[in-house]
Amino acid sequence: MNPSPVRLRLEIAYDGTAYQGWQTQKVGTGVQSVVETALRILFPGAGPLHGCSRTDTGVHARSLVAHVDVPPAEWRMPARKLVLALNAHLPEDVRLISARRAAPHFHARFHTAGKQYRYFIWNHPALHPLHRHHAWHVTRPLDVPAMKEAARHLVGRHDFAAFTVNPGYARTSTIRTITRCEVQRRGSAITVIIEGDGFLYRMCRSIVGTLAQVGMGKIDAGSLPDQIASRDRRESGMTAPALGLVLWSVRYQPGRPASESAEPDPTDGE
Amino acid sequence: MNPSPVRLRLEIAYDGTAYQGWQTQKVGTGVQSVVETALRILFPGAGPLHGCSRTDTGVHARSLVAHVDVPPAEWRMPARKLVLALNAHLPEDVRLISARRAAPHFHARFHTAGKQYRYFIWNHPALHPLHRHHAWHVTRPLDVPAMKEAARHLVGRHDFAAFTVNPGYARTSTIRTITRCEVQRRGSAITVIIEGDGFLYRMCRSIVGTLAQVGMGKIDAGSLPDQIASRDRRESGMTAPALGLVLWSVRYQPGRPASESAEPDPTDGE
Repeated sequence: MNPSPVRLRLEIAYDGTAYQGWQTQKVGTGVQSVVETALRILFPGAGPLHGCSRTDTGVHARSLVAHVDVPPAEWRMPARKLVLALNAHLPEDVRLISARRAAPHFHARFHTAGKQYRYFIWNHPALHPLHRHHAWHVTRPLDVPAMKEAARHLVGRHDFAAFTVNPGYARTSTIRTITRCEVQRRGSAITVIIEGDGFLYRMCRSIVGTLAQVGMGKIDAGSLPDQIASRDRRESGMTAPALGLVLWSVRYQPGRPASESAEPDPTDGE
Repeated sequence: MNPSPVRLRLEIAYDGTAYQGWQTQKVGTGVQSVVETALRILFPGAGPLHGCSRTDTGVHARSLVAHVDVPPAEWRMPARKLVLALNAHLPEDVRLISARRAAPHFHARFHTAGKQYRYFIWNHPALHPLHRHHAWHVTRPLDVPAMKEAARHLVGRHDFAAFTVNPGYARTSTIRTITRCEVQRRGSAITVIIEGDGFLYRMCRSIVGTLAQVGMGKIDAGSLPDQIASRDRRESGMTAPALGLVLWSVRYQPGRPASESAEPDPTDGE
């Protein structure tokens, strides 16, 4: 009998500008394969890397959690040393932030309890050069109080079919719970914080695009409940561009990292 | 008699990564000449651009104030329209943030009453990819309370000869007043805010390098007054790298923008 592999829980950050998202596509490179390539320099027998989400082309991550199995015979360092060791083999736009051993059944995707995304808008006639790769440039002054009002309607357990590009892609259900949806302004920087138990394809960007159009006066803040009820993508607003979106943090149920009871959602992704 | 030129006050932001600082050097491009080139597309007779500071190679600006004279015959638009018009001719790492007409004797450099610089340190084993061009990566955990204590000694009117690379370069005096020197931590991000009436060559970076060495335990926080008193660069700490420094804001005396009484300081620069 083979000894059980060492399962590692990795926290990865990246600037998504140069990548076709997390998963490698037919064209272009995904962050996943960049990290897998680096891992196999250290651990030739490493298995595939499983990420908590599939971020879209151009989306960034502050903290994406992934797991990987390493053959025990190749595992010779304390997990914390992996940060320096792996980063030496990664491009500077991808970084391993932390590494630790996980329970043998921990699954980075199926065991998530919640995620937080942040979306950055630069609301000024000129886009600040230091934010040009990580913020959506909206020149027209946005009505932030109206955006805040609209955001409140999104909080709760709803069918978000009207806020995903292809609801049929969600093979299970389009019902999700948004636990926090906040709009903050600080000078020209507007941040939208969205937290929930799971997200449909392009859901965050559809929400932010809709909120921005509320801020532009093109959509009435009070119409959000009707948009949700419609379950029709044509009823909600535009899709905000990828470059402003950051997967900010991922939450796992405390003490249940290895639980098999969490509902797997193979469609989750932004 | 020639009609008097139209004097414009411009607020410019830039990512300094690709530039040899504000002033054009023998090798490489300065932001100043990039903006001058764009200005002369709109106003062929525009004079030279005078900036409030000469930032060093790789240093960034959130708000650098400059003035320029335009022949009245070429001046055909409201000043606020200049933002869109000029940005169309600038690379995306340089932006005009605001423009307005200034008093005929306003001088962007000689009439400054104070400046604020911010320096960003990323204090974690791995440098966050989204901050890689705008933060100094310090892997060793820094003792921020010690840095705060050291920073307090710098506030006040002092001879900062020990915190400039070449005191002889300051033809007038090496006495400056620091009105604010604060160290803030938020997670892995440490920000040093330095405000003063003027800065000697590389003064901010010498201060931050010294504070960082205090945070590393290499320099005692209580030794700062002796370092200042020494007037000797060898007594203070290292020079922090340029990429973490941002010229944050410039202050002019209210109601005295055209005053000739402010003491010109031709040596000011970081």
